[in-house]
Parts: sequence; structure tokens; C-alpha cells
Amino acid sequence: MRRQRRWASTGTTFREKLAQASQRNQSLLCVGLDPDPPLLQGTPVATFLQAIIEATLDVVCAYKPNLAFFEALGTGGMQTLLEALRPVPAHIPVIADAKRGDVGNTARFYAHALFEEYDFDAVTVNAYGGRDAVEPFLEYADRGVFVWCRSSNPGAADLQNLRLSDGRPLFEAVAELANQWNTRGNVGLVVGATWPEELERVRAICPHLPILLPGVGPQGADLAAALQAGLDAEGGGVIVSSSRQVLYASSGKDFAVAARKVALGLRDEINRQRDALLARR
Amino acid sequence: MRRQRRWASTGTTFREKLAQASQRNQSLLCVGLDPDPPLLQGTPVATFLQAIIEATLDVVCAYKPNLAFFEALGTGGMQTLLEALRPVPAHIPVIADAKRGDVGNTARFYAHALFEEYDFDAVTVNAYGGRDAVEPFLEYADRGVFVWCRSSNPGAADLQNLRLSDGRPLFEAVAELANQWNTRGNVGLVVGATWPEELERVRAICPHLPILLPGVGPQGADLAAALQAGLDAEGGGVIVSSSRQVLYASSGKDFAVAARKVALGLRDEINRQRDALLARR
Repeated sequence: MRRQRRWASTGTTFREKLAQASQRNQSLLCVGLDPDPPLLQGTPVATFLQAIIEATLDVVCAYKPNLAFFEALGTGGMQTLLEALRPVPAHIPVIADAKRGDVGNTARFYAHALFEEYDFDAVTVNAYGGRDAVEPFLEYADRGVFVWCRSSNPGAADLQNLRLSDGRPLFEAVAELANQWNTRGNVGLVVGATWPEELERVRAICPHLPILLPGVGPQGADLAAALQAGLDAEGGGVIVSSSRQVLYASSGKDFAVAARKVALGLRDEINRQRDALLARR
Repeated sequence: MRRQRRWASTGTTFREKLAQASQRNQSLLCVGLDPDPPLLQGTPVATFLQAIIEATLDVVCAYKPNLAFFEALGTGGMQTLLEALRPVPAHIPVIADAKRGDVGNTARFYAHALFEEYDFDAVTVNAYGGRDAVEPFLEYADRGVFVWCRSSNPGAADLQNLRLSDGRPLFEAVAELANQWNTRGNVGLVVGATWPEELERVRAICPHLPILLPGVGPQGADLAAALQAGLDAEGGGVIVSSSRQVLYASSGKDFAVAARKVALGLRDEINRQRDALLARR
């Protein structure tokens, strides 16, 4: 049942692979793969995403399929995802946006599924179960484990901003735990790009962890503010993820050409803003 | 792609269906379906679980497949689960243990997958994303939505027991949110059976919500203490879930017979303990 490794690195860690892809494509842009069938103009999901990937593979530092969109396709969904990912070159990492989290024995099976069966380079996880719930993912030292820390949706505050007895909001405690769990150098964080103040706090707590930033584009994040808050001391350490803005750049048959144009524009705008910020530091 | 409803209720809510199954089988016992291939003695997963279900379907109030174990089977995993569930009678609810949680737009796709594609009667969810992350599940008023509140693993305390500024541990705030989110009467909670004091607090906060109690059996919960802490005022409101103890009751070819024996014993012991508790109230 286990497949051959197709796109995960061999002998290279996720962080090295990400850095190399980022360097090679001069890009901090990740394209999120969130296929919503009514928006695909009749094109099959795998064909649509393959065209998107082929049109953007020299522009991105990573791809991020969101597993919910493939589960929603029914029993064939994960096979569709594997087909969709076929054009991803071996040097571009794939981050499975899964937000999985459960007690340790169950987490072992999720980690096996995502890292062995599907051979993803990195995953997003939910830390509510605590350290032993995340440990089965962390044990894959060559893969990336992004802990969901602060999301960009309106309800995020319900739990994530609850004040702890020491005055910190909960998401800051999660960021500190992520730091503690980084004994193998494979931990990252997911922080919505729409809240630069929260992002700045997380960056201060975790100066060295990569931060996956969804929410650029339709969710309305201010790119400059997000970069200022999120970039690490070397002017890197962020993965700016955009999904709908790229995938659905055109509702016509030119969707892949349009996606490339938007992705190129986003990549260049991120680089321009970053360079301007670094020049002022 | 959407399948016909096979086991979810039509015109009956999850809570009604659960109550009816519980009444009919005189049972608060849920059998968890966590297939670990090396433990199945060469029997195919679907065949093994079908035999377990056929041997226990007059003894349980629900089945609870843990999706991690099916994802770990690879791209055919969810098809295997559907095959495994074929013998489940229409009057027995199936709770998908998924712990899904993400921002609202993504959660919509998870809810679609679990409630429409797979037609589960109920799911477990992770509330870290807040209300709008859970709302897409809650909108299915006839299904059950169990919010993961307090788990039984050692690391649970890392986040769930963090003290808030008002002195409460985080899991109590989650329990209160679950109460607030119960506007359609379809919310429940997941609380590990191993911590009766925490369970008692949750029951006090949520007197009317059904509580799914994993952790009976190998995780070592004291059944009497869990029932005393978790039963509602009417002596119900708990779903006692056991997985490995039932599935792997025998490592021989008599596994189904052995599973029935263990399930019957558990069901009767739960009823005996409950009756003793109610007699003392």
C-alpha cells in the first residue's frame, strides 16, 4: 500500500528544501490548492490543478493542498489529489493543510497517512491535544510540522485570544509550546496574515520558526503590514499563501495563464515590499 | 458523486436516533472502529470490521470509526470504511471521530464531506478556530457535533488545563462555548473517561449535552468514577466508547465471538454501575 516517494525530499529536510525552492524561484509565495468544483468551469479537478501547477511551478516556494477540499470530493478525493500533484517538481515542497490533531495513538496514524502514505513534505496540525498529540508528527525529523496558532477568521478570538492567568492570550502560549517542541528543527506556525499585531507577537516569541501566512488576498490582509510583522531577522521565514486569488484569477478558459499572472504579480510584490522593509531596517 | 443516504436518519435527529438505539439495545456502549492492520491476523480491514459489527449490533448504541485509521490505509481508506459500515443497521448511529477544525470556508468542505458525501450521523470537531469554524457543522441540525473538550492523554494538560484569567482551565471555557453553540440542540462534547474530576466539571457546566467518553479499557479509566461524574440527571447522556478492548479481544480466529463477549460484558457492567449509582442518588 505504501507508495514510492515521489516529491518528498530524500536526504534533505523540509526546511532545506523550502529554502532551496525559495532561493531558486526567488519566491516566498505558496499557492494553496483549494479546488471548489462549481468554480472550475467543468474542468476535472486534477486537470485544473495540474494546469495551475504547470503555470506556476517556477514562481512558488511551495504548494499547499487543503485536504478538506479533497475529502469533499468523496472516496476518490485523495487519489485526485495525488494525480493533481503529479507535475510538482521534486524540488518544490508540498504542505498538506490538514489541521490534524488527536491523542497520541491516533496521531500516529494521521502522521503515517500524511508522511508515509501520501509522502507530504510538511503538514499543518492542531495542538489542542498537547505535546504527545503532536509528537508522532515531530518524530519525522525531515518533515515540517506547522502548528495552527492564530487564525484569520472572525471567530478566532473565541478561544485563541482568551486571556491566560499570566495575561497572555492563548495563541501566545501555543507559540511558546511550538518553540519548546522544536527540538528537531522541524516546527513551524500557521498565523493568519490579517492580524499583524498578533503576528508580530508570535514572531517575537518564535524568532526562528517558519510562519505559514494564509489570508493574503480574498481575506484582505495588508501585505506590507504582514511582512513587517512576520519576516525574521534575515528577511525570510514566512510562506505567504494565496489560494482563491490565484486559482480563480479568471473564470474563462485562460485560467492557468491568469493564475500565472496573478502569482507572478504576488511574488514580485512580496519581494518588492520585503526589499523595501529590509532597506529601512 | 453524492451517495444515497445509507445509515443516517431521515426525519430523525441524531439525538433521537441515539436515544432510540440506546433504548432498543439497552446500551450506553459505543464500539470504536480503529483498525490496525498488524492486529487483524491477515483479515482484510473491511471484512474484520464487518464481523465485529455483525457480532455487536444488538449490544451498542453507536459505532465510532476513527478516520485516522482509514486515512492511514491510503487512497482506498475511505472506500474501505464505507464497506466496513455496510452491516450497520439504519437505526444505529455512526459517529465519525475526525476532530476536524479549520476556518469557516474550509470547515464548510469538511462538513460537506462528513455529512453529505459520507452521511455520518455525527462527527467530532476541534473548536480551536472558534464559532464560525464550527458553525458549518452545526448548520446540519439533524446531525451531532461533538466538540473535543478534554482528552485523556498525558499531554492534554499542556493546553486544555491552562488557567484563564478568571481562574478556569481552558477546557471549561470550551465546554461553555459548546453550550452557547447548542442553539439547534445538536452539540455534544468529547471528554476522556480517565479524568473524573474534569468530567464532573464539564457535566456541571453542560447539564444537558451528550458526552462521548473515550478511554474506557486500555487507557485505564475507572468506569464507576466516570459514570458518576458524567451521567446526566436522568442517568443518561453519556456514550462510553471502547475500541481496542473490543476489537482485539482475541488474537485468534474467534475475534468476533470474543468481541461480542467483551462488548456484552462492558454494556452490562455499565448498566449495572449506572443502576447502582441511580439507586444511591
